[in-house]
Amino acid sequence: MEANQFKDFAKEMIDYVANYLENIRDRRVLPTIEPGYLRPLLPEKAPNTPDKWEDVLADVEKVIMPGVTHWHSPRFHAYFPTANSYPAIVADILSGAIACIGFSWIASPACTELEVVMLDWLGKMLDLPSEFLACSGGKGGGVIQGTASEATLVALLGAKARTVATIKAEHPEWTDMHIIEKLVGYTSSQSHSSVERAGLLGGVKMRFLPVDDKDRLRGTALREAIEKDIEAGLIPFYAVGTLGTTSSCAFDNLEELGDVCNKHNVWLHVDAAYAGSAFICPEFRYLMKGIEKADSFNFNPHKWLLINFDCSAMWLKNPYWVVNAFNVDPLYLKHEQQGSAPDYRHWQIPLGRRFRSLKLWFVLRLYGVEKLQAYIRKHVHLAHYFESLVKEDDRFEITAEVIVGLVCFRLKGSNELNETLLKRINGRGVIHLVPSKIKDQYFLRMAVCSQYTEKEDIDLTWREIRDATDEVIDESTKLNGFNGVNGHH
Amino acid sequence: MEANQFKDFAKEMIDYVANYLENIRDRRVLPTIEPGYLRPLLPEKAPNTPDKWEDVLADVEKVIMPGVTHWHSPRFHAYFPTANSYPAIVADILSGAIACIGFSWIASPACTELEVVMLDWLGKMLDLPSEFLACSGGKGGGVIQGTASEATLVALLGAKARTVATIKAEHPEWTDMHIIEKLVGYTSSQSHSSVERAGLLGGVKMRFLPVDDKDRLRGTALREAIEKDIEAGLIPFYAVGTLGTTSSCAFDNLEELGDVCNKHNVWLHVDAAYAGSAFICPEFRYLMKGIEKADSFNFNPHKWLLINFDCSAMWLKNPYWVVNAFNVDPLYLKHEQQGSAPDYRHWQIPLGRRFRSLKLWFVLRLYGVEKLQAYIRKHVHLAHYFESLVKEDDRFEITAEVIVGLVCFRLKGSNELNETLLKRINGRGVIHLVPSKIKDQYFLRMAVCSQYTEKEDIDLTWREIRDATDEVIDESTKLNGFNGVNGHH
Repeated sequence: MEANQFKDFAKEMIDYVANYLENIRDRRVLPTIEPGYLRPLLPEKAPNTPDKWEDVLADVEKVIMPGVTHWHSPRFHAYFPTANSYPAIVADILSGAIACIGFSWIASPACTELEVVMLDWLGKMLDLPSEFLACSGGKGGGVIQGTASEATLVALLGAKARTVATIKAEHPEWTDMHIIEKLVGYTSSQSHSSVERAGLLGGVKMRFLPVDDKDRLRGTALREAIEKDIEAGLIPFYAVGTLGTTSSCAFDNLEELGDVCNKHNVWLHVDAAYAGSAFICPEFRYLMKGIEKADSFNFNPHKWLLINFDCSAMWLKNPYWVVNAFNVDPLYLKHEQQGSAPDYRHWQIPLGRRFRSLKLWFVLRLYGVEKLQAYIRKHVHLAHYFESLVKEDDRFEITAEVIVGLVCFRLKGSNELNETLLKRINGRGVIHLVPSKIKDQYFLRMAVCSQYTEKEDIDLTWREIRDATDEVIDESTKLNGFNGVNGHH
Repeated sequence: MEANQFKDFAKEMIDYVANYLENIRDRRVLPTIEPGYLRPLLPEKAPNTPDKWEDVLADVEKVIMPGVTHWHSPRFHAYFPTANSYPAIVADILSGAIACIGFSWIASPACTELEVVMLDWLGKMLDLPSEFLACSGGKGGGVIQGTASEATLVALLGAKARTVATIKAEHPEWTDMHIIEKLVGYTSSQSHSSVERAGLLGGVKMRFLPVDDKDRLRGTALREAIEKDIEAGLIPFYAVGTLGTTSSCAFDNLEELGDVCNKHNVWLHVDAAYAGSAFICPEFRYLMKGIEKADSFNFNPHKWLLINFDCSAMWLKNPYWVVNAFNVDPLYLKHEQQGSAPDYRHWQIPLGRRFRSLKLWFVLRLYGVEKLQAYIRKHVHLAHYFESLVKEDDRFEITAEVIVGLVCFRLKGSNELNETLLKRINGRGVIHLVPSKIKDQYFLRMAVCSQYTEKEDIDLTWREIRDATDEVIDESTKLNGFNGVNGHH
């Protein structure tokens, strides 16, 4: 493809995506196709000679869009948000053209250095303790990981390396395997599935501890588990605290967890994947109280800070153990400036890495801190508005405190009734929610996800839920001759 | 940022990057800045109010470009190529706007389904055995991983799960740890550093076996190692064969390795990260003879097939063990169509994933198979042309057979002399090479990397090397009173 063709094609695509996003409200949020819909729409193999770009662009609407779940529709309330913004898309064009693989400083110094500085900018926006920032001149610093799952795994591997080294110093006669067999990690029963997975991948035991009545992991639960394991001859080495759990957006008590971890030399990793973005607003920072006691901290600007996936920000107080766990240094990757800047390949699972800090730079500059704060506050405000609508209807109950942008609610009544309601809502296709379950109670989650969400969209979402509820209750009454919602209607 | 501003900004960026790439030959391939150059060019923190996009764009040339190593310059010959093409950049604009997180089918069916079909298209282009393809209707299929490192690790974890299950069936009294302690993986001393890393991450022993006189791992070396370990009571479980090693682009003998692995129920993973793209040309497929004996196969279209990073294609004959090793399934990720299409989150380390198959679709359609084949052949031809230039100068020797796009060469003489030469070449900054070392012999690597490379660029590269050689030898002669290159000049 020649440069002139590229310019035509790319500019048409720019118009197409602007049109897609500006009018995304008009599309059905969930597709209606069945599994296997796409294969019959395409040839069985790649063409021998080039297709026209005009045909490729036309096929986007014909082949792709019918199968897209529109995550940026203001009617998408599933999971948690994923970010998307115009400045990030433009930054990715530049990243794609430079297309360096920043595994070491020399492989493209700007790629490493902008990342170091952008993680400082971002850390300052959250008011992270200076120990985590490279600009403090200490050991600490930040890095962009692909996902929070990787950050959790990287921290676990660093913790494992640190503890194995410490224990080996005390017991030189023990093999690594003997030590690893004794290692125990801790997290709450409400932490993300990726924490369990990190334990599986890292080959260590992981305990899922009970939470309090607000779904929070507390110091006592952690202390008791650790003391019990120490008594049994095991070695506590790693704990993950969650700020904003996926199921109900609960915030573990970091201050309590931090004290326990520091006392027992257990690496405390903080997973604030979704909610971390809120800490750019001072009024939400009480939720991260105790952060100075953590060893590593992670949140996803690619969730709620308008920076497209993937951009998961991780800070380490002392990267030594992570770097040490991964360091495999062949001659073709050595360079003369080693040591004077981070070689980020040692900080992550993959070797290669894209120039992702450009997205951070563009978004932070083109929004500015105040507009980003306003964006977070607007989402929180809309969540509380939805909460107030739910509370006005006494068929429903709110099942978790609404703190940032997630509202957990259910019909008073059986889990089955709520499952039926959820299916009905998603089947209607106007809005999209996913459910969760805590302590055997099934509930619905309404996350404010889209940057296009306005009060009117929340009104529509609520109308959809009410209409679906009316249908479900009508049918349930007709079918069973009784009202399934505990007498309310 | 409003849609109209976005259109202006994005279109200016399109012009900027087209201009950057079309004139990339004029830029110094290696930057001249020192570590720490960037921080003083930026404010200490993010702005409170928005900057203008015109200022951001202007800063790209001021702040970023002075620190960029230009991987797409025809004078960049370091590492291996990384891909970059106009159709891939346009596909990424669309991917950025849709910005779905395709961790399950329902999360955006098009994202999963296009990936399944594109991996079939690509597998057919390589003439992979049908067992690897989803369209065969068997268990096999392909997936896009971020990097070859992740593919190697995913395969290792699948192999580990498979072997632990098999051994536990025979010895129900053994603990997982007891089994894992006995597991041994194998690869050649020439395999990529990520294989060693996968062993570290997976917590298993990995043996690095000697290669033959052409840097290839052969069946005998693997068989002897496996038999020795079995005799010692250990459990061989995983082997990685490399097609196109990083140091010298050697090709392990897959047919021999496959026989040994199949006999001993060892999972054979094939890492063809760089060279795999060449298999779209029938004349290079002899190098992958025996592929039907492998359990998993991986190559990086993001290296040599014009699809921007990240796009590492992996095929598995039986994904069951990988899916099983990773499967952690919370309620909020369940959906009704589970089982009828792959939920790719179980095939990979991270949870989230971008819509990367769009890049494959755009590139395969807008180039077509024949132009992609011509692209591969041109690079191989240019490598042989460079080889012929080196051979004409009897101060030099070729240190490995030139098979695809890499030429390994050195000055006849000491390693020190060659190290001095390499430093001189990179110091001049016109071209960029990295060295490697095999069996204590240090040599230089010239990889044909850029899509813009023409015969004249290879001529210039060679002139640069000759000029640097003249300088180095002159200085060496003056300094030591003798000619360092074994009497040749």
